[in-house]
Amino acid sequence: MRALRLTGFLFLLTGLGLAQNQPPLNLMPMPASVQTGSGQLPITPSFSVAVTGAHDASLDSGVQRFSKQLSHLTGIPLRPGASSAPTLTVHVEHGRDAVQRLGEDESYELAVSDSGATLNAATPLGALRGMQTFLQLVNITPTGFAAPAVTIKDQPRFPWRGMLVDVSRHFIPIDVLKRNLDGMAAVKMNVLHWHLSDDQGFRAESKKFPKLTAMGSDGMFYTQEEIREFIAYAHERGIRVVPEFDIPGHSRSWMIGYPELASGPGPYTLESGDPVMDPTRESTYKFLETFIAEMAKLFPDEYFHIGGDEVDGKQWNANPKIQQFIKAHGMKNNQDLQAYFNQRLEKILAKNHKIMVGWDEILHPDLPKTIVVQSWRGQQSLAVAAEQGYRGLLSYGYYLDLMWPTSRHYAIDPMSGAAANLTAEQKKLILGGESCQWAEWVTPENIDSHIWPRNAAIAERLWSPQDVVDVNSMYARMHAISLELESLGLTHNSARQRMLHRMAGTADTSALRVLADVVEPVKDYHRWSEEKGPIDFHAPLNRLIDAAYPESDTAREFSDLVETFAKSGYKDEAAEAQIRNWLTLWRNNDAKLHPLLEQSELLHEDVPISQNLAMLGAAGLQALDYLDKGQPEPELWTTQQMAVVDQSKKPVAGLLLQVTPPVEELVQAASAPAPSK
Amino acid sequence: MRALRLTGFLFLLTGLGLAQNQPPLNLMPMPASVQTGSGQLPITPSFSVAVTGAHDASLDSGVQRFSKQLSHLTGIPLRPGASSAPTLTVHVEHGRDAVQRLGEDESYELAVSDSGATLNAATPLGALRGMQTFLQLVNITPTGFAAPAVTIKDQPRFPWRGMLVDVSRHFIPIDVLKRNLDGMAAVKMNVLHWHLSDDQGFRAESKKFPKLTAMGSDGMFYTQEEIREFIAYAHERGIRVVPEFDIPGHSRSWMIGYPELASGPGPYTLESGDPVMDPTRESTYKFLETFIAEMAKLFPDEYFHIGGDEVDGKQWNANPKIQQFIKAHGMKNNQDLQAYFNQRLEKILAKNHKIMVGWDEILHPDLPKTIVVQSWRGQQSLAVAAEQGYRGLLSYGYYLDLMWPTSRHYAIDPMSGAAANLTAEQKKLILGGESCQWAEWVTPENIDSHIWPRNAAIAERLWSPQDVVDVNSMYARMHAISLELESLGLTHNSARQRMLHRMAGTADTSALRVLADVVEPVKDYHRWSEEKGPIDFHAPLNRLIDAAYPESDTAREFSDLVETFAKSGYKDEAAEAQIRNWLTLWRNNDAKLHPLLEQSELLHEDVPISQNLAMLGAAGLQALDYLDKGQPEPELWTTQQMAVVDQSKKPVAGLLLQVTPPVEELVQAASAPAPSK
Repeated sequence: MRALRLTGFLFLLTGLGLAQNQPPLNLMPMPASVQTGSGQLPITPSFSVAVTGAHDASLDSGVQRFSKQLSHLTGIPLRPGASSAPTLTVHVEHGRDAVQRLGEDESYELAVSDSGATLNAATPLGALRGMQTFLQLVNITPTGFAAPAVTIKDQPRFPWRGMLVDVSRHFIPIDVLKRNLDGMAAVKMNVLHWHLSDDQGFRAESKKFPKLTAMGSDGMFYTQEEIREFIAYAHERGIRVVPEFDIPGHSRSWMIGYPELASGPGPYTLESGDPVMDPTRESTYKFLETFIAEMAKLFPDEYFHIGGDEVDGKQWNANPKIQQFIKAHGMKNNQDLQAYFNQRLEKILAKNHKIMVGWDEILHPDLPKTIVVQSWRGQQSLAVAAEQGYRGLLSYGYYLDLMWPTSRHYAIDPMSGAAANLTAEQKKLILGGESCQWAEWVTPENIDSHIWPRNAAIAERLWSPQDVVDVNSMYARMHAISLELESLGLTHNSARQRMLHRMAGTADTSALRVLADVVEPVKDYHRWSEEKGPIDFHAPLNRLIDAAYPESDTAREFSDLVETFAKSGYKDEAAEAQIRNWLTLWRNNDAKLHPLLEQSELLHEDVPISQNLAMLGAAGLQALDYLDKGQPEPELWTTQQMAVVDQSKKPVAGLLLQVTPPVEELVQAASAPAPSK
Repeated sequence: MRALRLTGFLFLLTGLGLAQNQPPLNLMPMPASVQTGSGQLPITPSFSVAVTGAHDASLDSGVQRFSKQLSHLTGIPLRPGASSAPTLTVHVEHGRDAVQRLGEDESYELAVSDSGATLNAATPLGALRGMQTFLQLVNITPTGFAAPAVTIKDQPRFPWRGMLVDVSRHFIPIDVLKRNLDGMAAVKMNVLHWHLSDDQGFRAESKKFPKLTAMGSDGMFYTQEEIREFIAYAHERGIRVVPEFDIPGHSRSWMIGYPELASGPGPYTLESGDPVMDPTRESTYKFLETFIAEMAKLFPDEYFHIGGDEVDGKQWNANPKIQQFIKAHGMKNNQDLQAYFNQRLEKILAKNHKIMVGWDEILHPDLPKTIVVQSWRGQQSLAVAAEQGYRGLLSYGYYLDLMWPTSRHYAIDPMSGAAANLTAEQKKLILGGESCQWAEWVTPENIDSHIWPRNAAIAERLWSPQDVVDVNSMYARMHAISLELESLGLTHNSARQRMLHRMAGTADTSALRVLADVVEPVKDYHRWSEEKGPIDFHAPLNRLIDAAYPESDTAREFSDLVETFAKSGYKDEAAEAQIRNWLTLWRNNDAKLHPLLEQSELLHEDVPISQNLAMLGAAGLQALDYLDKGQPEPELWTTQQMAVVDQSKKPVAGLLLQVTPPVEELVQAASAPAPSK
């Protein structure tokens, strides 16, 4: 056995295979410590699991789920049942409480040898995490399915590893959320932050205030029974559910049924108005006392998110009574008023045994140090909160809706930036982070592809040691985990094919796939600026931009190829041959695709980008020819090709042609003075 | 408007587009009468449905389902709700009974114009059928989603259009069955024949005889609550559920818990023994009386299937008391004994207001003419039954587990063969037919691909006029319906990709797909003969044979290409270019695929077939070269290539290389004397 510390060196190894004849360890998140052994444990139809130690019902159901998932991954039917010689023995010391606590022990030790495996954990939660690691160890090999011999000691770096799902802008049905919980469990995330209300829809049933959903939604919301069942589903997977009801801003949906909560005159509709809650009226707090008491019972988690972000001061400014209140109470501004509101809110929550969580705007010295601040505006604010003694969560940098490449999310660490300079005590206040799936542009159909597989890399950032940073290793392992997630029921890959078929009718989609494989949706908030006026949340999301993956694997791999080729001084023939294949495919693709784009109204808008791809392919091929001959390009050639490149850089139909930069490199290399021979 | 009778002429038209600028009508089953109009009805976010006439709750839920499906097909969110100007008006004259009857009116008239659509039907059942037709009319066009202007008058040819699903050999969970009900509804099938018991497992809960499932299954069965809910789900979709409990043979699973039912001494296990029920003991009928009374309540349909096939006489022959009984009652043989058993059974069923259905072995003059005979051994037996005055169903020719090409199922008509000579009165006794999905080789994962899309063509055979027989039209329309079915939630295409990924680990699957696209599982019962001894129903079904489609589209299309090329006297250059592309792909594929086949134990067995494909590709390309040059091949060349062809015809790992025959054609064409120039 050979002990390995987790360093860049290990990642080089995992990318290539840990030992000869051993497949790479496609684990994500990468465990804290991995020792490889020799040999492997075969997975056969006689595979069985024994549970020893403390008895826990949720562990039993976890083991059953594990068997099912292993069966699904291998196609080997595994029947639960005791065996005298279990293949995997799971031992836990304690049972679990009915409500999962922040910081509950998630550590485990997993030892796999060629004759069996043992998984030891203090808690069932740790055992759940370890079983997911075991599933990721299983590979098809020349002798069948097997897990390599390995000893893993693992625990999370941060205790709060969450994902926010906005279900207000577009309603996401429970079954879609459930499969995403399965995905979160697979990558060891432990908090589902459920953004249940916002301007565009109130999604949780209140029996005390039924008009919240009856008038504040399009009829789509979760009943309390569904919510309870969902929380139990999450609990079984070791995931806490933290509800968010965003107030006093982002709360239009409340005001349709209860306009008396607003700071300005109603009435409001789901589509228009920017009401903000009135923090000066006692009736507001009376409402919130009743509402929070109801929700505090429904959601058992100790933490309760009150939003608090982006409070638009217009209504407060325009209301003389509110301005009067500010003066009368010796407040300086609207920020103080919001702090007053939050203080009142915090007391209501405390009475209901809840700890307040809010976005970074809630940070104010008047609030007790028990609250948790979720930073979305920058890493700086997380450090500022910690300096003031507040616990914090990082979400800045983890916004999945901004369509960033995985590597960009992956590079952001809760302890980097300003946080790096915190004292050890202050650093302890940083609890972890949350990815955020805001729902302006998602439907139940494409939400999985907006979340996965990128979310797995964020999960790794929050679980694995800080020095786990190798980007190539991350992409290789994320690819494996992406396949695992599809097998477990997520649809981030399969849904795209169905969406392409919808656009293409009965026509062959292969040329459309070639285009779809090299485009990405525009980044950040650029899609918003496409819209004239407010976004229509009931508009169809059935265009190519809605089907395209946030990150193009093909473009990334092509870019790597061009880089390899450049580094060889444009001499690496294998790389050049592959580059040529791609460029030829793209050059010829528009001729095949164009008739289809004409036939489908959904695809008309993509005519120019398909033409751009063809021109880029041609430009790249010509560049290769010049590079091969080592002769300078004819006059004007570079100018012409750079015009193609510039045109290809402009978004078309909300899509970026992501192979443009590497083709630009080829063109510029071809126009550079020929290297001396 | 232009009236069209449904003839081969129409199918030529539908394949090409009914009118200029109109997409083809991809309807399956093809309606009885179609009149095309001009223009089209746009499907926009303001699409709405109004229901007039008789009120019926199941129609309301049908309309909601329709809206959801239309929304799914188009990606356009459609919100239910009244509109002053409905796009589609559905009118029915009557409501529905709680239990669907055989022969209930399913006719409908659907008129679509550019300004709206009306769907008129006598019953909600007809309206359900018409809504499915409407969904199939919707296409993406250059101006958006639209349904072409058309007037359709439609009704089924046969009143009984079913599918048998065997859930005994491999248990199929309710959710998988439900999505298959959705598929059946899409192609207007109206009977789910639920083969609930067989030797290998008893799958329906009996509260009177709990050991039937407790001992007679591997723990996987349907509770009565699930069964009731499933029947309601089917009823909403206009599908009757006919249960089958197969007796007196095929009944080993009964005998594990109740060995006293058997004709020979037990004990039995799920894996071994061939017990047959003892028809000579009164206790057997006492048991059946109680059991059938319980099941008759659980399953509301008027028809009840008692199996009755393949009664193995060994136990009866070996039991002196049974032989004594036969003599004492003046019977001639075991067949008479079975008829006696069936007579007793029929009386029990009649007491429970059920009509007996059984496989063709039950046909015996002692049985009343009310029973229905399901013919599986040949078309002949259906005619024989009708001649004797018995009603019948055809299943011979519709066995989906035999892996036949769709065209072969499609060519078999309940009224063809011996039935063609029946009198008009006798023909009326033929109620329709059922496809049969026997479950020796299916799992929840691959069952959809064994059923779909081929089952859609059988559904057409049973619904559409007898002269709807054009095979090219069938394949073109089936392709469209296959895409529709995937969009509605069936997994016949998407599951294959996941299975290939399982075999390939994290490797790229494109070369594996090239191979998978040209192979088919061996036909008929040839897979059975691979097994030494009895089939292990708990063995993994995770090999390439399990993922391969029953029919290879690529092979069929390649074969058509070669035929086109041959008909042109080997001069059609466009066809030749396409043939060359395919052959080149195949010739080069093994080099890419071989390393993967070596890495995965699941794929080792496919090494030879991948090599065969490469050799076929090379042989075909050489043949083209000789054909191009118009010169005779060198000596020995044909002999060598025919050896390749012969080797490629042999199954490898249960797979047939379906492009072998067209390559053989090319080789033989190249070896024929050169055409005179």
